[in-house]
Amino acid sequence: CMSTAIHAQTDDNSTSSRIEPAILETANALIDTALKSNLGYEIVESLTTEVGPRLAGSEAEKRARDWAEKLGDSLSFDRVSVEEFTMPFWDRGHLHISLTQPYKQALYGTALGGSAPSTEDLEAPVVYFRTVHDIQNINDGELNGKIAFIDGEPMVKSQTGAGYGPSNQKRRIGWQHAQRGGASALVIRSVGSDSHRFPHTGMMSSDNNNWATIPVIAISNPDADHLRRLHELNKTMHLSLHSGSDWQGDVTSGNVVFDLVGRDKPDEIVLIGGHLDSWDLGTGAVDDGAGVAITTAAAELIARLPHRPRRTIRVVLFGAEEVGLLGARAYAAQHAAELNNHVLATESDFGAEKIWRLRSNVNPDANAVIDGIGRQIERLGIVRGDAKSPGGGPDIIPLAAAGVPTVRLDQNGTDYFDLHHTPDDTLDKISPEALAQNVAAYAALVYIAAESEAEFRLPKATEDKE
Amino acid sequence: CMSTAIHAQTDDNSTSSRIEPAILETANALIDTALKSNLGYEIVESLTTEVGPRLAGSEAEKRARDWAEKLGDSLSFDRVSVEEFTMPFWDRGHLHISLTQPYKQALYGTALGGSAPSTEDLEAPVVYFRTVHDIQNINDGELNGKIAFIDGEPMVKSQTGAGYGPSNQKRRIGWQHAQRGGASALVIRSVGSDSHRFPHTGMMSSDNNNWATIPVIAISNPDADHLRRLHELNKTMHLSLHSGSDWQGDVTSGNVVFDLVGRDKPDEIVLIGGHLDSWDLGTGAVDDGAGVAITTAAAELIARLPHRPRRTIRVVLFGAEEVGLLGARAYAAQHAAELNNHVLATESDFGAEKIWRLRSNVNPDANAVIDGIGRQIERLGIVRGDAKSPGGGPDIIPLAAAGVPTVRLDQNGTDYFDLHHTPDDTLDKISPEALAQNVAAYAALVYIAAESEAEFRLPKATEDKE
Ligand SMILES: [Zn+2]
Ligand SMILES: [Zn+2]
Ligand SMILES: [Zn+2]
Ligand SMILES: [Zn+2]
Repeated sequence: CMSTAIHAQTDDNSTSSRIEPAILETANALIDTALKSNLGYEIVESLTTEVGPRLAGSEAEKRARDWAEKLGDSLSFDRVSVEEFTMPFWDRGHLHISLTQPYKQALYGTALGGSAPSTEDLEAPVVYFRTVHDIQNINDGELNGKIAFIDGEPMVKSQTGAGYGPSNQKRRIGWQHAQRGGASALVIRSVGSDSHRFPHTGMMSSDNNNWATIPVIAISNPDADHLRRLHELNKTMHLSLHSGSDWQGDVTSGNVVFDLVGRDKPDEIVLIGGHLDSWDLGTGAVDDGAGVAITTAAAELIARLPHRPRRTIRVVLFGAEEVGLLGARAYAAQHAAELNNHVLATESDFGAEKIWRLRSNVNPDANAVIDGIGRQIERLGIVRGDAKSPGGGPDIIPLAAAGVPTVRLDQNGTDYFDLHHTPDDTLDKISPEALAQNVAAYAALVYIAAESEAEFRLPKATEDKE
Repeated sequence: CMSTAIHAQTDDNSTSSRIEPAILETANALIDTALKSNLGYEIVESLTTEVGPRLAGSEAEKRARDWAEKLGDSLSFDRVSVEEFTMPFWDRGHLHISLTQPYKQALYGTALGGSAPSTEDLEAPVVYFRTVHDIQNINDGELNGKIAFIDGEPMVKSQTGAGYGPSNQKRRIGWQHAQRGGASALVIRSVGSDSHRFPHTGMMSSDNNNWATIPVIAISNPDADHLRRLHELNKTMHLSLHSGSDWQGDVTSGNVVFDLVGRDKPDEIVLIGGHLDSWDLGTGAVDDGAGVAITTAAAELIARLPHRPRRTIRVVLFGAEEVGLLGARAYAAQHAAELNNHVLATESDFGAEKIWRLRSNVNPDANAVIDGIGRQIERLGIVRGDAKSPGGGPDIIPLAAAGVPTVRLDQNGTDYFDLHHTPDDTLDKISPEALAQNVAAYAALVYIAAESEAEFRLPKATEDKE
């Protein structure tokens, strides 16, 4: 289907769109239960308090898997499994960064994921680039003996997070140009929409699997404002920095999988989840303790019904999302043989604010069922969005690439990038009421998807045409 | 006057209350000019950008005096002087603090002013105190080998800052009890109303000029929440910390004084000001770059009138306010002989939000003139408050104690303690529009006070009764 037109909702009474009234009734009761339940909040409180920050590949991430296994066992799941994989470990180490000319002032910075260590106490003059586009025009070697600074603007706020991609360019590829230019280090304005003194971390992009050989440091928006003002006053700026960030060799990470085995079609899987790892600066409450909590609580509320739904509901708590979807890739590889049986997949990984929209990308014949789900969760303040919207969340990308149908419950992301990847990502930023709304929407969505007979998958292409 | 009743405004037409129409007209024009001027913002932008943080007694505070001297010379003042004094210097040094049991997690902490260094890498179990009152009940030696943690609540928000005093008890005197108990260190929940991951610094109180001999560290509200939750789960907590904070001996600080010499009564002084030093974590924009900017800009706009007002207008940019009003005390001592000629004093040191109230504490016969000033600035959204309200700002305390009459233009402090003494006290937190409203109110107030014949001082007590 090449159409990009807005999907016109199918008549509720057509055969293909019918969701049995008993299913709708149960979904409705699940919503009521979820709105009164504190389970989601209790889960994210427990994860952030009892485990704390949990960097991909770290000992803390291992403790998070142990915590998740214990949680799964204490709830009503039929199967709890830990599925390990191997990954390269990048550790932040120590960072010191300060302005030394025109005067000494500490800056609030943090290394970006993949940053290399500084070999010595580095002190060098700054070359200022207004945007990431400007540094792409430099000549090789032009930055020898210098520290490059890429400014830019604070990230534009938006309900959908539309500002993230453009703002993130300097984080992803800035280093490639700084390094080509011969810079001793790259400093960038954080990718974030807040005006607090926190830097935002996050992974750089590799250059065909080659990582930066220089330190790459993000500084807070107010710090970047400060350097911009000094630059505009034509002050010569020097920075000094010392960073211990480096790759530490291979370690074990893992995904934790909770199954509610379908009573009728146990091999057909409706997959939901979040990621268990977090950046190390905060305690990973909104990114992505919330997703772990929302999807686990939604499945648990379904598990407390008198009968299992027809299909299997699987909660995957992915490891090592932040450093390149490593858990998601491992899951797709380890479950390659059963991906055809994944009938629908979605992840919660966009914070903890209320959901406002339902989008989907399923077999068009099943759009009417998604529309029916949309009508069911409308009372939660959720609008039915595009029916041809690829997505499902970051950890769903490898599944979607393998043909797994996806839906997405879009949270309001207006303030998400105030907190994202900062020390400020802590439990107090989560509203129990907003979290309960999320659990209610997921519970209804997942229950209907697992209980109905709807075929979300596209018909298989005929394999042997000859 | 023992009355605490709300002051009833005097009739505008009584002789004592009359402010000449020409004075009111000029004050009104000053307000218009100030609201259109960007001078205040330019001053605080320059101070925070070109000097940065400026800890009392530091090289940076010296650069701030140099900056102020240059600023005063570039403006229209008749006299610019730097008045030095000697003070003991406390430097923050390096701090590392982390939770080590039940797991390792970095905490966001900062040493309180006056904190002693740790003698080694300290690691000890935590004794939890729910409030500062609880630690006052311990026995001597009861905390041997332990780190005391005083929790409490986030500071209550209020327009007047009423939450500060009560919340600040743990910062001021907590150490005395922890030290008496034998604790190796004291950690407290920050005195602040925000939920960001920033600790708030600030000075401890000495105990009869004895300072703490243990490290005393404030941690952010979210970090304190975290420790509280672990405590409520009955987890044994250990902290490790290393602090290099210490006293460094005597250094030179100073006040910078700008005078507009009165055309008629040059010896009578209307004193306004702010403090030039700041804590070192932020760049001292709202505390107190704003006060420096507001009062300097107000005086400068008056200086641009065709004639000097009758009385002298003096702007004092106090040094070393944060560490115990040292500049204010030095000013009062160095100017002891002329304090009787200080007819009115006030300081701007409560942030950069709009002024909402005018309070005063002057000769009751002159209340009507203050009322008249109140009517003049009413259009700025300012209400006339109590006429028997001691105050004038922290650096005015020594002057008020010597009998100098005071007024206060109260800024809205609701959000002040979100930023106060944190890294987040940076220029972006200041609204140029709110700052201009402040300049307008100060310009009108100071102009009328300096131009009028009103006697704000109390009649002198008869010295020789016999
Ligand atoms: Zn995430
Ligand atoms: Zn993330
Ligand atoms: Zn202050
Ligand atoms: Zn202060």
